[in-house]
Amino acid sequence: MPTATGHTSAIRASKVIGTSVFNPAGEKIGKVEDVVLDKQSNNIMFAVVGFGGFLGMNEKFHPLPWSTLDYQKSKDGYVVNLTKDQLKAAPADGIEELTRADGSGLRDEVYDYYKAPRYWQ
Amino acid sequence: MPTATGHTSAIRASKVIGTSVFNPAGEKIGKVEDVVLDKQSNNIMFAVVGFGGFLGMNEKFHPLPWSTLDYQKSKDGYVVNLTKDQLKAAPADGIEELTRADGSGLRDEVYDYYKAPRYWQ
Repeated sequence: MPTATGHTSAIRASKVIGTSVFNPAGEKIGKVEDVVLDKQSNNIMFAVVGFGGFLGMNEKFHPLPWSTLDYQKSKDGYVVNLTKDQLKAAPADGIEELTRADGSGLRDEVYDYYKAPRYWQ
Repeated sequence: MPTATGHTSAIRASKVIGTSVFNPAGEKIGKVEDVVLDKQSNNIMFAVVGFGGFLGMNEKFHPLPWSTLDYQKSKDGYVVNLTKDQLKAAPADGIEELTRADGSGLRDEVYDYYKAPRYWQ
């Protein structure tokens, strides 16, 4: 899916990782920790965004479909259209758990939660 | 496309980056420098593999379709089914050039060269 702002560039995963994530109010809510790739197809399975946490503790990792990350140049980051409550209720886990095995169990739940179109059957 | 060895795991881009790349004879020929993601869709545009070079000089960067990288656990790396001559003749450029703008001009050439199925129209 194209980003909402219609950006057409290719982007290096190494640059996506570490990019800040903002809510629609413009508050920074986290950053991209990693991008999980699907080995079975040519797809990006999801981005992993770290939210919250203090001094490295209690940080939660949320898998977000790639299509939910809207890059805005003025912020040099992604805007995600989520309220605080939506974020609190969203699927989250530790980063190892999110990328264990084939990731596909959580994938269904994640795409449903964000109402993102599935790239698989 | 599934990897030739049928791996089903999801894989973190941060782990793909830095993975060694081997030819079918088992010789290490390079490593994955980055993975370029398509902002316009949910796809992996290509992996960027650095080949050759000595003391950081003259290294060439080759865009390779994701489907050409066959992960083999015994090697802890990707095997790419290319001869030296095929590699020498393959599309290559500096890493900035490969990820400039939308990457799509080079993309056609790359997918044709490796006879990889196009994920776009």
